[in-house]
Amino acid sequence: MSLSMKRTTEKNLMVFSGRANPELAKAVAEGLGTQLVPMQAYDFANSETYVRYDESVRGCDAFVIQSHTAPVNQWIMEQLIMVDALKRASAKRITVVAPFYGYARQDKKSRGREPISARLVADMFKTAGANRLMAVDLHTDQIQGFFDGPVDHLQALPVITDYVAKKYGDENLAVVSPDAGRIKVAEAWSKRLNGAPLAFIHKTRDVTRPNQSVANRVVGSVEGRTCLLVDDMIDSGGTICHAADALMNAGAESVVIASTHAIFSDPALERLANSVAREVIVTDTLPITDEKKFDKLTVLSIAPLLSQAIREVFEDGSVTSMFDEME
Amino acid sequence: MSLSMKRTTEKNLMVFSGRANPELAKAVAEGLGTQLVPMQAYDFANSETYVRYDESVRGCDAFVIQSHTAPVNQWIMEQLIMVDALKRASAKRITVVAPFYGYARQDKKSRGREPISARLVADMFKTAGANRLMAVDLHTDQIQGFFDGPVDHLQALPVITDYVAKKYGDENLAVVSPDAGRIKVAEAWSKRLNGAPLAFIHKTRDVTRPNQSVANRVVGSVEGRTCLLVDDMIDSGGTICHAADALMNAGAESVVIASTHAIFSDPALERLANSVAREVIVTDTLPITDEKKFDKLTVLSIAPLLSQAIREVFEDGSVTSMFDEME
Amino acid sequence: MSLSMKRTTEKNLMVFSGRANPELAKAVAEGLGTQLVPMQAYDFANSETYVRYDESVRGCDAFVIQSHTAPVNQWIMEQLIMVDALKRASAKRITVVAPFYGYARQDKKSRGREPISARLVADMFKTAGANRLMAVDLHTDQIQGFFDGPVDHLQALPVITDYVAKKYGDENLAVVSPDAGRIKVAEAWSKRLNGAPLAFIHKTRDVTRPNQSVANRVVGSVEGRTCLLVDDMIDSGGTICHAADALMNAGAESVVIASTHAIFSDPALERLANSVAREVIVTDTLPITDEKKFDKLTVLSIAPLLSQAIREVFEDGSVTSMFDEME
Amino acid sequence: MSLSMKRTTEKNLMVFSGRANPELAKAVAEGLGTQLVPMQAYDFANSETYVRYDESVRGCDAFVIQSHTAPVNQWIMEQLIMVDALKRASAKRITVVAPFYGYARQDKKSRGREPISARLVADMFKTAGANRLMAVDLHTDQIQGFFDGPVDHLQALPVITDYVAKKYGDENLAVVSPDAGRIKVAEAWSKRLNGAPLAFIHKTRDVTRPNQSVANRVVGSVEGRTCLLVDDMIDSGGTICHAADALMNAGAESVVIASTHAIFSDPALERLANSVAREVIVTDTLPITDEKKFDKLTVLSIAPLLSQAIREVFEDGSVTSMFDEME
Amino acid sequence: MSLSMKRTTEKNLMVFSGRANPELAKAVAEGLGTQLVPMQAYDFANSETYVRYDESVRGCDAFVIQSHTAPVNQWIMEQLIMVDALKRASAKRITVVAPFYGYARQDKKSRGREPISARLVADMFKTAGANRLMAVDLHTDQIQGFFDGPVDHLQALPVITDYVAKKYGDENLAVVSPDAGRIKVAEAWSKRLNGAPLAFIHKTRDVTRPNQSVANRVVGSVEGRTCLLVDDMIDSGGTICHAADALMNAGAESVVIASTHAIFSDPALERLANSVAREVIVTDTLPITDEKKFDKLTVLSIAPLLSQAIREVFEDGSVTSMFDEME
Amino acid sequence: MSLSMKRTTEKNLMVFSGRANPELAKAVAEGLGTQLVPMQAYDFANSETYVRYDESVRGCDAFVIQSHTAPVNQWIMEQLIMVDALKRASAKRITVVAPFYGYARQDKKSRGREPISARLVADMFKTAGANRLMAVDLHTDQIQGFFDGPVDHLQALPVITDYVAKKYGDENLAVVSPDAGRIKVAEAWSKRLNGAPLAFIHKTRDVTRPNQSVANRVVGSVEGRTCLLVDDMIDSGGTICHAADALMNAGAESVVIASTHAIFSDPALERLANSVAREVIVTDTLPITDEKKFDKLTVLSIAPLLSQAIREVFEDGSVTSMFDEME
Repeated sequence: MSLSMKRTTEKNLMVFSGRANPELAKAVAEGLGTQLVPMQAYDFANSETYVRYDESVRGCDAFVIQSHTAPVNQWIMEQLIMVDALKRASAKRITVVAPFYGYARQDKKSRGREPISARLVADMFKTAGANRLMAVDLHTDQIQGFFDGPVDHLQALPVITDYVAKKYGDENLAVVSPDAGRIKVAEAWSKRLNGAPLAFIHKTRDVTRPNQSVANRVVGSVEGRTCLLVDDMIDSGGTICHAADALMNAGAESVVIASTHAIFSDPALERLANSVAREVIVTDTLPITDEKKFDKLTVLSIAPLLSQAIREVFEDGSVTSMFDEME
Repeated sequence: MSLSMKRTTEKNLMVFSGRANPELAKAVAEGLGTQLVPMQAYDFANSETYVRYDESVRGCDAFVIQSHTAPVNQWIMEQLIMVDALKRASAKRITVVAPFYGYARQDKKSRGREPISARLVADMFKTAGANRLMAVDLHTDQIQGFFDGPVDHLQALPVITDYVAKKYGDENLAVVSPDAGRIKVAEAWSKRLNGAPLAFIHKTRDVTRPNQSVANRVVGSVEGRTCLLVDDMIDSGGTICHAADALMNAGAESVVIASTHAIFSDPALERLANSVAREVIVTDTLPITDEKKFDKLTVLSIAPLLSQAIREVFEDGSVTSMFDEME
Repeated sequence: MSLSMKRTTEKNLMVFSGRANPELAKAVAEGLGTQLVPMQAYDFANSETYVRYDESVRGCDAFVIQSHTAPVNQWIMEQLIMVDALKRASAKRITVVAPFYGYARQDKKSRGREPISARLVADMFKTAGANRLMAVDLHTDQIQGFFDGPVDHLQALPVITDYVAKKYGDENLAVVSPDAGRIKVAEAWSKRLNGAPLAFIHKTRDVTRPNQSVANRVVGSVEGRTCLLVDDMIDSGGTICHAADALMNAGAESVVIASTHAIFSDPALERLANSVAREVIVTDTLPITDEKKFDKLTVLSIAPLLSQAIREVFEDGSVTSMFDEME
Repeated sequence: MSLSMKRTTEKNLMVFSGRANPELAKAVAEGLGTQLVPMQAYDFANSETYVRYDESVRGCDAFVIQSHTAPVNQWIMEQLIMVDALKRASAKRITVVAPFYGYARQDKKSRGREPISARLVADMFKTAGANRLMAVDLHTDQIQGFFDGPVDHLQALPVITDYVAKKYGDENLAVVSPDAGRIKVAEAWSKRLNGAPLAFIHKTRDVTRPNQSVANRVVGSVEGRTCLLVDDMIDSGGTICHAADALMNAGAESVVIASTHAIFSDPALERLANSVAREVIVTDTLPITDEKKFDKLTVLSIAPLLSQAIREVFEDGSVTSMFDEME
Repeated sequence: MSLSMKRTTEKNLMVFSGRANPELAKAVAEGLGTQLVPMQAYDFANSETYVRYDESVRGCDAFVIQSHTAPVNQWIMEQLIMVDALKRASAKRITVVAPFYGYARQDKKSRGREPISARLVADMFKTAGANRLMAVDLHTDQIQGFFDGPVDHLQALPVITDYVAKKYGDENLAVVSPDAGRIKVAEAWSKRLNGAPLAFIHKTRDVTRPNQSVANRVVGSVEGRTCLLVDDMIDSGGTICHAADALMNAGAESVVIASTHAIFSDPALERLANSVAREVIVTDTLPITDEKKFDKLTVLSIAPLLSQAIREVFEDGSVTSMFDEME
Repeated sequence: MSLSMKRTTEKNLMVFSGRANPELAKAVAEGLGTQLVPMQAYDFANSETYVRYDESVRGCDAFVIQSHTAPVNQWIMEQLIMVDALKRASAKRITVVAPFYGYARQDKKSRGREPISARLVADMFKTAGANRLMAVDLHTDQIQGFFDGPVDHLQALPVITDYVAKKYGDENLAVVSPDAGRIKVAEAWSKRLNGAPLAFIHKTRDVTRPNQSVANRVVGSVEGRTCLLVDDMIDSGGTICHAADALMNAGAESVVIASTHAIFSDPALERLANSVAREVIVTDTLPITDEKKFDKLTVLSIAPLLSQAIREVFEDGSVTSMFDEME
């Protein structure tokens, strides 16, 4: 009789979804030729969250998709609990997929006695049992370093610029950042769009009128141009809509707003719908329900990108090569 | 010139409160002769939580109070973020005070592929930077072992039984557990009440009528007695109200309900107010707003117990000796 | 020349046994169609334990079986040392198999300044290098949460109740717990035995005779019934034998004792052999040598259950489904 | 006889210095009214580094100062070894003081398969035994989140802007960032200098002349102004000197270069000395030996800032309040 | 009302003893002017170990003394459980005192697939909650590096050589190591005894008589000398008694055996009592009961050394300076 | 549609080399029938090290080879950074291959307040992401226990003794250790060379001439013999060359020096070339550039040993069996 029992090892990809944005997760699974693993997920009467998988997940290569939309704390906790249940059910490897990574803006102490919640979230996923992290357009690249393990950092830029280049490529473009600290994003856009000139909005207090509020000064030349006003996310929309106004005041021909993450907190919808922008382009990293849609809004799907990245991870291919052209 | 600079070391107790149950925290601080450290705590438009302390907390012995009431995930995340901010602001020692510890009922896998969320919560507090944990009447004692560090496990029993003994001590008492798995709690009550007899409710399917729902069978003798129906928590109130009915049907003289944690999820208020119970006795480990109050309800304050325990911890006294009589 | 060298991955199950209960481990290995990996294990003159494997274990999926029988500290340390040696010899995955998990009863602080040894043991196995844990009928389910990783919690209940149903199924049964805190076990039995009624023994001080010892009061109806007195373990047998007496005094027709873990510390054998019980049914999670056997004793083998569970773990099947009927 | 022996606890600050920049460390110690703890530190013949403290460090509050100047790996390793020796010699608390934090620019994966060395360095200090980190002007604020513990992030800005305001305050100023991604620094300068207007240099490929090198385009208005060209560090000086040229070409009145960290790798000295700049202002976070000095160079000492911060940390004061005016 | 409550911090030394060698621990406590903290420690019927402290240990500086004598696994586990209980009872700092550190000889893999139990033991103490380690004459100095924290490594050499120098100082001495690998110990002796010449025993197979057992060849000159045969421990005594015989055969005048740790496993007593040695000198790091004593045996107490070291640790003095003369 | 996507798992060995000793790494890769993975590795102007792999390493079984030659800190940091990059690029398993393990001699505190750098280095590799360690002839075997994971400890002894036996086997041999503390190495040589007699050099102060320097006394018989003077490493060569002189003075026929690691710090070359030795035999665990070669020097390649060991590790064979004859 033998001293051991041998088997050829098989890898087994399984895709899981929390309740925050199941449509996106479903599309990702379909793009992989599989379907979401059936599970129960609900809140008890006292609001504690419960999850349980209907099928054995033993030994699987698990990808757990959750968009950190509002209520953010609810969906992060649900994803943590999903990871814990996978760990205890003997999943072999667990990748947290956060198309929009919550708390990304709390990535440093701007002032004393603040938390660094973006690091806390990374550590909690590690503690719960996550081995890997996948996210789209992190607010700052440094968040990659908050997680103690591999991070696949995907970029929505090709998806959006392909669309923009096709539609606006023949116009006289400028790429504009709504904030001095976010010009890196605009630079990447400029590079993809044949070196279109850059500008940014500088928010200042008007020193001639003390006690007065902030003024938006356009730094760079935008006159007569189709301004692509770009950022990684649109939250309540105030900054970006004021920036659009400033651009028009500075002589821009028109303004197109583009952003990966459509947080759309109140009153973003109203602001954007009524803004001077010709078009607002976003992706579905966060769920965009019908009541969040308005005429000027274009939603591009991020699902194919996620499907491809998960496939590369599962098959030990290269995620980097998906973005090679961008370097 | 000296090789070093010396100072006598001082300990510095500071009490912090999340937004879940500030009244309780305020009472605790007052019981200690201090006040809550002023801080900002709010949610951004997209629901991400932000906290910042207004005063330096460097070197302090921090006690962070949060009741895990609904929405539980929100308040646990807020407390985690508070701990992270304290750690990064150089607090010397951080004690998480959870008068009601959330997810305590998910303390095991009842079935395959479930999480053990109570352990996950303990690990997350550790990860965030908590050194110690303090809680009242954990759902099971074993949760003490989920945290890798000291746990001060307080008991509300003396507070409640003192009240009960004074009011009902002359009647012919029985102590009843609404569930076979919770008789340990009833045993502790019985011990404090001169060995009053025990009973419990056994939920069974009626085998003579298959496909029929659960029956509540009283195991133990309750006839003609004032039944103290006791449990650690009342959630939606179904179990305990059915138990009260069963006791009355079994000939009980009257029923008094007593419990440490008043979760009171819908429709607990309606059920309890309309129940056969003479009185419902709880503590304020969870916030009980005015609309949660009803005629039969008595709320005992847990604040003095928490104040005393925090003082013992701070002064290196003994928390155990607070409950010595109970052993 | 290629940049890399490729091989198809093979899994390789190996079963190891400490010296505490080699018969059980041998039966488990045989049930898997393999045999125990040969090793040296002995104590030096000064009682330090030494182990070494005779064959390469590199890359194997190791299952290390040890029953935590007396002397418990000796066998736990031996198993820890075995795990350390496997880790350092490059085993790929290490599962600690503890048919009886030692120190399970020290799973909480009942009083101040006690250890929580059940958590300590779990942490030590993790520290030594264990990735997973497998155990039978943990004293409390919460111990699953003490280990930071997957725990396969097997239940001996089906093995024992199948035997009991066949032998006593036609009699008028009651299921009795010898202790108020252990009724959950009795409930599970009742469920498997068509809802047989429950009872428990309530230990009280007789208040009419202070300074007198404990009385055993039967709570629930047992008259004229065949009482199945069930618990997870029998240690020195005092509690369960007194319970059996109390049941006979309360009019039981007869008493059958059943338990998963036969610790049988002195004077358990004498007590059980001389008890009123008709039969005592246990499994071999702990070694039962010939001198531990007596007439009324029936020992059911747990080996097939362990073999099946190990096979499911190795082949990424489902351990949960082995107990599906029980939910 | 007593059960215990009591003593009043004393805190004991000790300052240690590696060999990279002992002059700065000495000045810091003097600012605290103490002196550097004597120690041996040398390299063996094979280049392995050895350290040993001459005095007992048991129980001390240790601050270990090392500037990560070239050879960076050498000095980081020395500091790690110093921390290890302190930990093993029972220092009570260890704060790593890195006036210039090495590898700060490798704070993310710009491309696939890169390290995140800034996180690695933080983790290594933690592993060696560091409890806290203190640094001046981290390249990005997010590095605070790389360390799992308190980080005191000091800002040289007040030191430098006080000097600039006194000297150039009456001129017509503009604040210029040499790189789009670093405008945040310039914004902070602008805020301290009464809202002086911002500009930045946009590096682009000239699309009309493909295969040609980078052009520096000034974005923002600088004509006739004294341009303060600011960044956190000057390495080989190429970027900042080209930026100065571009500013003069764009009509600037004059250019003043200011930066916290004077890395001054070859050929920085030559470039800066020969540049169009009127003055180059730096601090001594990195050692500036005599041969690194040139006519236009002004070196401001960072030692008072470090002394004050260490004192606040030791005395449980507030480091944040040192920069209050800046918020 | 204040935002915080202040107290001057007090340190509080407490000494605890396991059951392995309480006489030594008692002497150590007395040397400190205190007494052992009263506690319960016993084994349950099934051999599981239980401990509980009778007094509050909150905030204390705990020293937990246990000699790792036979049964080693029992006493190591007891000490681990004691540490766990102290951690959970909020001791401020926990120092494990192991006068003889068990498993010290299993400090490497001599062959493949062996454990490194000395590292495992160190890791387990860390896991249980120990902050520091104190031991006497570790088998190899490298074991200091197995513990992740401060190790106070005490040397019994001064205690024993003082005795030897007084008694045999006028004779013509040689220092002999019974084993080639242990000459470092003999070198230290030689240094303390005015450079007495060294020798060692080389165990070889006699190549002229294959299949024959080991021969002991004396390397170095011992003729006419009083040979001090020294080692860190005497286990079953075979090696050292054969070495004594070889020395006498090589013309030694007489042999004196000296060793720190008197393990004295069977048949050490018989061998030593009947050996050619004039005297056998040991310390009481391990318990030496009356039946372990014989005529030639001299036992020196290690308690004063331990008391002094604990006092230095508690008062932030210097343990190193206790051995300064030895460098 | 299926719930999961399955693939057969493949293992993929990849070999990486730092810049310290690429010739050795190249030979190792060739011995495996593969080649080094192309990568960029260089230092920035300020001396910070940068690495990036040119090819995807996702899922690979990585072996990262670096000899810790001077500048040691540089090459250790580079290897750490390489490991970090592999971890973040999703390598499946990372083995650090250190043919010469740096800081091995700082494996204990010889005096108070020293670091234990050999443990620190092991911990840093673990922190960076290494799963396994492979090294040749560690200075002390205990270093195996410093790494928390599997260590493959290879021995160069067979390589060197095979060469020596062939060349000097017919002469009248003795094996000599240059230091009392290193006789274990000489013992292993003696065993491989038919039990050749042992000797060692005892360094003493001449007691008859106080304040005079060290004398080298030969302990053991070497007259008329070919003395193999063996050690694990030759650093600056002083000890070993003085030992060679002492042997010739003691009547040795000739001296042959052999050592695994040729550190050859100044002035080793001069000393060895001018020494009395007939031949100096080393391996290439450390790079031996042409200017380090001299007439008497013989360099044996360690590459075949490393290739074979890596192959065994990759294919789950046995590294132990490579050295079986040696036990």
